[in-house]
Amino acid sequence: MSSTFGTLYKVSTFGESHGKAVGAIVDGCPANLELSEADIQPQLTRRRPGQSAMTTARDEADKVIILSGVENGKTLGTPIGLMVNNKDQRPGDYGEMSQVPRPSHADFTYQMKYGNRAASGGGRSSARETIGRVAAGAIAEKWLKQQFNTEIISWVSSVGDIDARDMSTESLTREQIDSNMIRCPDEAAAEQMIALVKKTAARKDSVGGILTCVVRNIPAGLGEPVFERMEASLAQAMLSIPATKGFEIGSGFSGARMFGSDHNDPFELKADGRLGTTTNFSGGVQGGISNGEPLVFRIAFKPPATIGKAQDTATFDGEATVLEARGRHDPCVVPRAIPIVETMTAITLMDFVLRQAYRQA
Amino acid sequence: MSSTFGTLYKVSTFGESHGKAVGAIVDGCPANLELSEADIQPQLTRRRPGQSAMTTARDEADKVIILSGVENGKTLGTPIGLMVNNKDQRPGDYGEMSQVPRPSHADFTYQMKYGNRAASGGGRSSARETIGRVAAGAIAEKWLKQQFNTEIISWVSSVGDIDARDMSTESLTREQIDSNMIRCPDEAAAEQMIALVKKTAARKDSVGGILTCVVRNIPAGLGEPVFERMEASLAQAMLSIPATKGFEIGSGFSGARMFGSDHNDPFELKADGRLGTTTNFSGGVQGGISNGEPLVFRIAFKPPATIGKAQDTATFDGEATVLEARGRHDPCVVPRAIPIVETMTAITLMDFVLRQAYRQA
Amino acid sequence: MSSTFGTLYKVSTFGESHGKAVGAIVDGCPANLELSEADIQPQLTRRRPGQSAMTTARDEADKVIILSGVENGKTLGTPIGLMVNNKDQRPGDYGEMSQVPRPSHADFTYQMKYGNRAASGGGRSSARETIGRVAAGAIAEKWLKQQFNTEIISWVSSVGDIDARDMSTESLTREQIDSNMIRCPDEAAAEQMIALVKKTAARKDSVGGILTCVVRNIPAGLGEPVFERMEASLAQAMLSIPATKGFEIGSGFSGARMFGSDHNDPFELKADGRLGTTTNFSGGVQGGISNGEPLVFRIAFKPPATIGKAQDTATFDGEATVLEARGRHDPCVVPRAIPIVETMTAITLMDFVLRQAYRQA
Amino acid sequence: MSSTFGTLYKVSTFGESHGKAVGAIVDGCPANLELSEADIQPQLTRRRPGQSAMTTARDEADKVIILSGVENGKTLGTPIGLMVNNKDQRPGDYGEMSQVPRPSHADFTYQMKYGNRAASGGGRSSARETIGRVAAGAIAEKWLKQQFNTEIISWVSSVGDIDARDMSTESLTREQIDSNMIRCPDEAAAEQMIALVKKTAARKDSVGGILTCVVRNIPAGLGEPVFERMEASLAQAMLSIPATKGFEIGSGFSGARMFGSDHNDPFELKADGRLGTTTNFSGGVQGGISNGEPLVFRIAFKPPATIGKAQDTATFDGEATVLEARGRHDPCVVPRAIPIVETMTAITLMDFVLRQAYRQA
Repeated sequence: MSSTFGTLYKVSTFGESHGKAVGAIVDGCPANLELSEADIQPQLTRRRPGQSAMTTARDEADKVIILSGVENGKTLGTPIGLMVNNKDQRPGDYGEMSQVPRPSHADFTYQMKYGNRAASGGGRSSARETIGRVAAGAIAEKWLKQQFNTEIISWVSSVGDIDARDMSTESLTREQIDSNMIRCPDEAAAEQMIALVKKTAARKDSVGGILTCVVRNIPAGLGEPVFERMEASLAQAMLSIPATKGFEIGSGFSGARMFGSDHNDPFELKADGRLGTTTNFSGGVQGGISNGEPLVFRIAFKPPATIGKAQDTATFDGEATVLEARGRHDPCVVPRAIPIVETMTAITLMDFVLRQAYRQA
Repeated sequence: MSSTFGTLYKVSTFGESHGKAVGAIVDGCPANLELSEADIQPQLTRRRPGQSAMTTARDEADKVIILSGVENGKTLGTPIGLMVNNKDQRPGDYGEMSQVPRPSHADFTYQMKYGNRAASGGGRSSARETIGRVAAGAIAEKWLKQQFNTEIISWVSSVGDIDARDMSTESLTREQIDSNMIRCPDEAAAEQMIALVKKTAARKDSVGGILTCVVRNIPAGLGEPVFERMEASLAQAMLSIPATKGFEIGSGFSGARMFGSDHNDPFELKADGRLGTTTNFSGGVQGGISNGEPLVFRIAFKPPATIGKAQDTATFDGEATVLEARGRHDPCVVPRAIPIVETMTAITLMDFVLRQAYRQA
Repeated sequence: MSSTFGTLYKVSTFGESHGKAVGAIVDGCPANLELSEADIQPQLTRRRPGQSAMTTARDEADKVIILSGVENGKTLGTPIGLMVNNKDQRPGDYGEMSQVPRPSHADFTYQMKYGNRAASGGGRSSARETIGRVAAGAIAEKWLKQQFNTEIISWVSSVGDIDARDMSTESLTREQIDSNMIRCPDEAAAEQMIALVKKTAARKDSVGGILTCVVRNIPAGLGEPVFERMEASLAQAMLSIPATKGFEIGSGFSGARMFGSDHNDPFELKADGRLGTTTNFSGGVQGGISNGEPLVFRIAFKPPATIGKAQDTATFDGEATVLEARGRHDPCVVPRAIPIVETMTAITLMDFVLRQAYRQA
Repeated sequence: MSSTFGTLYKVSTFGESHGKAVGAIVDGCPANLELSEADIQPQLTRRRPGQSAMTTARDEADKVIILSGVENGKTLGTPIGLMVNNKDQRPGDYGEMSQVPRPSHADFTYQMKYGNRAASGGGRSSARETIGRVAAGAIAEKWLKQQFNTEIISWVSSVGDIDARDMSTESLTREQIDSNMIRCPDEAAAEQMIALVKKTAARKDSVGGILTCVVRNIPAGLGEPVFERMEASLAQAMLSIPATKGFEIGSGFSGARMFGSDHNDPFELKADGRLGTTTNFSGGVQGGISNGEPLVFRIAFKPPATIGKAQDTATFDGEATVLEARGRHDPCVVPRAIPIVETMTAITLMDFVLRQAYRQA
């Protein structure tokens, strides 16, 4: 259940690591949008593991195929079927783990929920599931860009204890962010982060990190009181990404330490004639609705649960044991999480835009 | 739109400050649950303003009326209509503000969304809207308590820069928490928090804070991959509460600074025969599904936007002006937010429980 | 469950005969629509029993109260709470029936579903539940009229074996239809129908009937492939009305007896420049989407289950018994069903209109 | 939009005739159900064209592929991806028709809705779209059979003016029904129907028909008041099938001509100790909820719109023209519609069963 997201831009995903394919159906994309695989592939490629020394070297080509909903290079208005074939369908690979639930992984909880201990157990909580959303969100990104010149930019702002300095968000580009392996636009911090990830990998350990995301050029008026306030839906979208532990918008947790007279964002007339705010502690949202300022939010990712380092734990039957994961594993997932964050943001925003039509009699 | 939450325990709310009433419809409550207004009123009363020197003194009786769905003291299985009458229906009260959007309030964004500047503009983002959810969630709390002895306990863990010490969450009770005005079970911190709130009020300012919430006795296996992972749905539920800026579960943002070998929660056989974990950095959730450990999460609340202190800002037309809110206003909302957090948690969990049935063939 | 209908114009209803009130929440009505109780009351009054010698004489004032969502005579864009108080809240009235499930009534099935035998058992399947929808639909009717001059007109086309002649649907008005007690615009048939109903009532029996509904001035392009085709959603809406047994659109069941060369509706250029059809066997819908011609559909209502005439049946425990319903009962519900059919049609269509925005890139 | 159906057994379909593939995602199937392609293929094969002299000879192999959600022969509880490749992906085939909207086809309405005149225009209203649902419903059939021994049996009860005699529905089997080409278990009528279809085909015309469907062994208590009453959801499901014009349950339209004293179904104690009814004018449903008797309903199908016979009509631009469809076309779709009706019924019922859990406290 609950592999469907959105009201008018509705994304349903399927697939786990060991089946034939993963993918999604996008229902509700407006007709007559120019669309081909080439619009979708770049974000899938950014998401792919094996792009650097830091991430796991499994080569997954991850070529997207459009199954339906597009003809003669344009969307039909009908559901867009999206599929990426799995290369590795050997369910036997994780056989050993079937006796020992990996600590902080989904093995145990999937067993409790579904009553099975299959090799793909927990597969819907694996990173591979996100392929369908990234593909679906790449379409939303294209549409938002066409409609409003919307730009969604995410970067690595922390790895472990290393924080990037505060970045001016007005002009950051994906090219800048992709210019180093860790995808942090603060070059000095990026070097330290890369060193930390390498050191962590060498210890067969993993490390967490934080992504910041900014959305420029998004109209005021988006978001739905009460239960789908902009920040509520973004929080749901972000915490639906594997390995996330927190979400904050604008001032976030530090805003809880402030006084109202410092935190309130005063209005002023902007050069373009728009009523805007002089500060943006709100993160672009007031009363659950976008105010036309950039959206700014941050997402915390825990260190990946699968590590090569030996761990004292217990089998499903409760017997003490030591677990060492074999093979190569990502020591730090945040660089690869960037396209997932960006595309989930696009899906959330496009749904709000479509729902905003006819809001006034 | 989007005043409905939940799939099988479906809560739809209505109402703003200046209409005749606020309330909710609860659709999907199992039949034959013993229920009367007395089960619902306590959380509404805890939510009510005017309970202490610290909160605004408006006396809102907030007596709930059950309109339908209950007969002879038991639920029928049909929709439960819940209503609380508004005492103050004078839409003229906020007349002056209709020219000046309150900074960081919903006046401006509701104007952008709905094209009206009514006195109730932004009313669905006011605290009064939460009455319907608190009533609906009180029913869920009763049901969860009966089914699993589930206990949902929230408290004030920070006000401004004052933090409560880490509390043992195993035995905290609502009685303990309600024993002081600020609802912080760390008595020393509570005194400091109360002093800070009073000082803030005297300056006609406001201050933010953080709530922690723990859920004890919740079964493993709840939560729905992918888009309704336990943490995703809780994040949505929490950030749908007015004035929230952040959500984190388990280790949260500090988990992003940790190594996997420290962060992973090893399994062990518990005294009750259950496979549990020795630590709980996961916050009770792995792979989006509850693991049987207590849920632990935190919510950041910004300082209330409406303050008496003069603010430089602009009118809707962009002219510079100074705004001073009249009347009494909450300098700190976090104590009153506790029942909202608890009941929204109950709604989220009850929906997951109902959806868990028939999960296995 | 499932007291909510619609995606963007979302109607949630509550209430049964013996609670305090019945009503609805309308979520998604555009802001700034002029609205007061006076816009809603007329259809509620048409739905009311006790309007004629033919229908049960219980006097239910059924005065609607707007609880929220409207200020200064205009909608706010927020949920519109609608309530009608129940006069008769004595749950004891049906006490006797609690031992004997009324044949073809909901007593038995509600017992099987909910495990209770309350006086209000089956209350959600009673006509009184429809009050909330009629109120919600009256708002949709007003909005559609404003947007497109849409006219939704239903009338009684059969009672028992008496059929009205085929009516020209181009100019029929509600005034004409309400000009006689049975609400059949064929005066000759109307007289016979009225005589039949009176005879039936005298025998303490009941009789079924058929309603026809036409919708004029509805734009082409409405309806959502696949599962919410126009005819699928209308069928759902109509068969959600108590006592319905069938739905057909355009040629309906008789179309199943035709050849394609007779049934196909050829296109031609209409005087107003629109491409229309020369016949309308399609009933205004092709491929699940409106084509701009009038929608025409028919709904079959069974004879009311509650009759005064003695019936051989069995108790809940399976013992043979004879049941005679006491009190006054409707011998024929179709005249009162007209406003329900019209308003459910309006709800269905308004939702489609709101969803049609942004359909093209 | 609206290619998703169901609340807990959620089916989302994609695909049209000229894309790469058609299929569906099934979200919510319980884990640990034994499942392989062999469970799904038979109904797809029954749905396939080209099975007899009567239907169009296009050979579509329609081999289903399970993409996800199944491992080691059992469902995982995760979404089941289902795909059937399209053989014919030449969008140019219908080129000529792009100037002339086929009468009573979806060409015109898709153009009005989506603003495109693509070869696949209207493709989501073509029979090929139903493949995804048939595959999804075959899984539901298997589960219902395992849980309750539920049997869903549909047959052709009318073609044009030829009606099958009333069949005893207690023992009808799919084998009996498939024993002749027209799938009518009344052999005498079947011969006449087949002759009529052949004669119709020879005239390059098409003819409509009616399906009856009976569901045996379905528990009492299923169906959701108000908007998802059993008959409302079945009506939606059936009228979502291409070419349908009407739905009736139990007595249906003929029930509208009856008196209550004849129409009411008296209760009696059944041999198996169950409280049942002596007649079944209700069609197995009372108050929107199943009563344990067989469900019986009928669906009217219009004659297929695409015929080879010359038709006077107009181009999109309004110019008079004559249209003759080339190629082979189904003169009568009702035999092939049987598996669609059966599987859509299964999807509807399985969703109700899953939602019935936890209905009582």
